[in-house]
Amino acid sequence: MTVPLPRRDLATPALIVDRAALTRNIAAMAAFAEAQGVALRPHAKTHKSGEIARRQIAAGAAGICCAKLAEAEALAADGVANIHLTSPVVTPAAIERLAALSRRIALSVVIDHPDNARAIGAAAGGLTVFIDVDPGSHRTGVTSAAAAVALARAIAATGTLVLGGVQFYCGSHQHIQSLAERRAAIVERTDYLRGVLDALGDAGFAVPIVTGGGTGTFAIDASLGLFTELQVGSYIFLDREYVDCELAGPRFEPALFVDATVVSANTPGMVTIDAGLKAFATDAGVPVVLAGAPDGSGYAFTGDEHGALRGDGLPQLGARVSLMPPHCDPTVNLYDRYFVLDGGMIVDSWPVTARGCSS
Amino acid sequence: MTVPLPRRDLATPALIVDRAALTRNIAAMAAFAEAQGVALRPHAKTHKSGEIARRQIAAGAAGICCAKLAEAEALAADGVANIHLTSPVVTPAAIERLAALSRRIALSVVIDHPDNARAIGAAAGGLTVFIDVDPGSHRTGVTSAAAAVALARAIAATGTLVLGGVQFYCGSHQHIQSLAERRAAIVERTDYLRGVLDALGDAGFAVPIVTGGGTGTFAIDASLGLFTELQVGSYIFLDREYVDCELAGPRFEPALFVDATVVSANTPGMVTIDAGLKAFATDAGVPVVLAGAPDGSGYAFTGDEHGALRGDGLPQLGARVSLMPPHCDPTVNLYDRYFVLDGGMIVDSWPVTARGCSS
Repeated sequence: MTVPLPRRDLATPALIVDRAALTRNIAAMAAFAEAQGVALRPHAKTHKSGEIARRQIAAGAAGICCAKLAEAEALAADGVANIHLTSPVVTPAAIERLAALSRRIALSVVIDHPDNARAIGAAAGGLTVFIDVDPGSHRTGVTSAAAAVALARAIAATGTLVLGGVQFYCGSHQHIQSLAERRAAIVERTDYLRGVLDALGDAGFAVPIVTGGGTGTFAIDASLGLFTELQVGSYIFLDREYVDCELAGPRFEPALFVDATVVSANTPGMVTIDAGLKAFATDAGVPVVLAGAPDGSGYAFTGDEHGALRGDGLPQLGARVSLMPPHCDPTVNLYDRYFVLDGGMIVDSWPVTARGCSS
Repeated sequence: MTVPLPRRDLATPALIVDRAALTRNIAAMAAFAEAQGVALRPHAKTHKSGEIARRQIAAGAAGICCAKLAEAEALAADGVANIHLTSPVVTPAAIERLAALSRRIALSVVIDHPDNARAIGAAAGGLTVFIDVDPGSHRTGVTSAAAAVALARAIAATGTLVLGGVQFYCGSHQHIQSLAERRAAIVERTDYLRGVLDALGDAGFAVPIVTGGGTGTFAIDASLGLFTELQVGSYIFLDREYVDCELAGPRFEPALFVDATVVSANTPGMVTIDAGLKAFATDAGVPVVLAGAPDGSGYAFTGDEHGALRGDGLPQLGARVSLMPPHCDPTVNLYDRYFVLDGGMIVDSWPVTARGCSS
């Protein structure tokens, strides 16, 4: 690709990142964390990009989070040297990969079961591990203070693992739309976490780091004083789900778009664009039209390759529209590249380094 | 990857294709088309694989369909030499790419607007085009017999394009679960198509090929005698959506699976596996557990990277489960490779050649 390139010359659907908005979002979160005295470890499952991870670290992040081992391997190969894995790694083959990666970069991983502590302890001596505490959603994590203490004992008994701290991620709380309701839920869950931390302390275990939080809760998490590190991901892009939420703390801007083209316009009040369910994640409703069609034009998925826009004054055949994805993380995972927008032109393209790296 | 490899040694989530079942599905559809005297042009938007396209053509297919130009470019680069594009190509830059591709392979494309006929006629002389007829879903296509005739005249007026025939794809009818209801709807739509074809004939236009149909309707389409070519896609894999339908014609077998691993097991009646909404398309409900957990274990999406299995007698930490995707096409589009299963072993891997090629 020869740059700069006019935005409208991109083949569509195209994933666009607004570099200036991204830069402001990275700076705003870095400034918030510094002012609050908490470390920042942004979650790279959102962007899967070595370029963006390096920008977050250059702005002060301690490192990044990855959700999966293959994601961490891909970003480590792209030069990211400090990664925390937020999901358990359990099979012997995966633990071998974990051990190999831990010899190349500063790596830590969560554990939620004593058997897993023993297996990792045997294969990856010296590794820093975090006790994953289930906030009640039962996705991963130990489910009680007693189980946390038992797991800490199993980690200590390996004689080879270092207890780095505790991870507590209230995933299902991130998108509670009302800030007051979200705050009340997080206050209640933080009381629970305090009990877990107290039990670990009473049993003689130091917990240097408490890591967690997301774009919906980070400001509440920071204000409650237990977290020492924030794992925010989506703040760099926002998406329709988070725009629908009443967020606290610094303001972020939408920085991720999908541009599409009208490919059929034969029915009054409706046009078809070339972005369907292979162009947007479909787990969180529909994208929002931002440009190229009147405000309020509604999008509907109409198949693998197409979507419908309905409304008045719709664009004509061949025209461009730009949309905000409903959910950024799995939308990014559909694309091989970001096209980087600045000053109205495409000025660069960045690979989605860890695209498809889910294993 | 060194093959053969035990299936359980694959990193998960892994996309698995059962080679024997795939081979039987390809043969069954080829035999059906031959017996019915219709051509077969399978839709490659399902598999996006050069390897599978070549197997379909070796079994008698006239060529393949692609949904998008980038998909066709990728499969042409992988040696597929006969492609029909089932979606309109409308921008000047895309029409230039279309013209370039038409100089390298046998290519045809649908058109649904006179302006598009003029643009393609000016840039891609000699190209074969099909009139896309809207079956009523208003996704793409001309919306009346009169509009079809007007478009045929615009195509003729270019002096450079060849009218190959008509495309009629009843997308929204494919998944009507009751066969009787689906048949009645297709009979009614085929009457409409007959009127369009009669109008074209009365206006002096020959329609050599009538192409369309899908895995839900191909047997009905063939029995009604208007279609000369079938565009079936999902029959090679099936998926949970089609297994839920009462299909007519030859029997097909599920041939596509996602293998996953239990990564957390701390809550009675529930385990977490490492396959979430980056591992399955989410537009068509949930995957079905086929192996590794008791029949009736229910899957629920619990996030980007994870899903929950609920039930009795669930597998333990580190165990494998295998699931049937809810919707094959957009699930395949999440993966870079198929792992090829035969005789219980992984014997090969095939790239998803056109993964992410939506533009």
